[in-house]
Amino acid sequence: MATTKQKRLEQKRAAILSAAEQILIRRGKNATMGDIAQALDMDKSSLYYYFKGLPEILNAILDKEYYDFSLNIHDIRRDNKAHVDVLKEMARVILEFYHDNIEILLIILTRIFPLFLEPGNREESTAINNYMDSYHLANDLMLEEIRLALQGGELATEFAPELVLQTLRGAIFGVCAVWRYGKPGRSDIPSIVEQLFRMYV
Amino acid sequence: MATTKQKRLEQKRAAILSAAEQILIRRGKNATMGDIAQALDMDKSSLYYYFKGLPEILNAILDKEYYDFSLNIHDIRRDNKAHVDVLKEMARVILEFYHDNIEILLIILTRIFPLFLEPGNREESTAINNYMDSYHLANDLMLEEIRLALQGGELATEFAPELVLQTLRGAIFGVCAVWRYGKPGRSDIPSIVEQLFRMYV
Repeated sequence: MATTKQKRLEQKRAAILSAAEQILIRRGKNATMGDIAQALDMDKSSLYYYFKGLPEILNAILDKEYYDFSLNIHDIRRDNKAHVDVLKEMARVILEFYHDNIEILLIILTRIFPLFLEPGNREESTAINNYMDSYHLANDLMLEEIRLALQGGELATEFAPELVLQTLRGAIFGVCAVWRYGKPGRSDIPSIVEQLFRMYV
Repeated sequence: MATTKQKRLEQKRAAILSAAEQILIRRGKNATMGDIAQALDMDKSSLYYYFKGLPEILNAILDKEYYDFSLNIHDIRRDNKAHVDVLKEMARVILEFYHDNIEILLIILTRIFPLFLEPGNREESTAINNYMDSYHLANDLMLEEIRLALQGGELATEFAPELVLQTLRGAIFGVCAVWRYGKPGRSDIPSIVEQLFRMYV
């Protein structure tokens, strides 16, 4: 009896998660427990019997994905390949993970990178707002130059202008992430820039 | 008289900022108004007469830097260069800006990217913690493979292993930043990976 009950509970939870995923993909972080209950034609208090709230639903949806991702990453290393191929496969698996879950992950990432992911957002700190302003100013100007460089054939890449901008920005941010533990000389910067730009030639 | 008083106020503020910058570079976000007052051998209430608090000090220190940065970015475009060279100079100026101000900027960036910049941090959300765990797991494995690929000559780059990892991670994150507005087919991922890896060959 207990097993049947347990099984029914699991089935119900799976049905809820499936409906919730659709709602979350469509409504993002604005989705409510009410929206999910409505989509399932159940009342909100019944929904709360199965899940304590949206964070628990979000977590249940991603749990399986994280698990698959970890297995994948470990499996890649088990085969005997060149290390550079292992790396490329890892990068592929990471990108596939983001590709498959981007709508759900954005709900999480918006918490971790609020100012980067929601361009209109302002902080109470003037220093943070000024930082974001200078960041966006530089991005606008760079995007213009990227478009012109692509049109004139100065850059040879399949990436669209936005993708050139954001991968470059991301890589620059990666450089800074390392600098926090120790900076090279300022004169090393031009050669770092050259190396980042190899992505686009 | 008023001008002299104004001038003295400015001089005092400049002296405070100079001392504050040293304290902030040394103590980061743990620095207090008390630390700064102590370094200047003045009492805290006098310090508050010149600056309402640490955020105002932080902002005053960065204000000039942001201004120089914006001028620089605009100047680069005024000369008639190939667009790709304009882009490289912009990347250089951005990196120089981070290079010169990383200690102060980290105080800001820690607010914007708390979980990425302070690896030990945990969130109350299980989904966010799981995301960060899978992120760090993948990073550890990739770093090992990067080291082996560099030792074996499979990657040809002047970048240290950490720099390869973080620029790759940043570029991957840049890809996702674009995907939030529209995803390509999943089958496009391998060619994106190849293009990112051009940085390291």
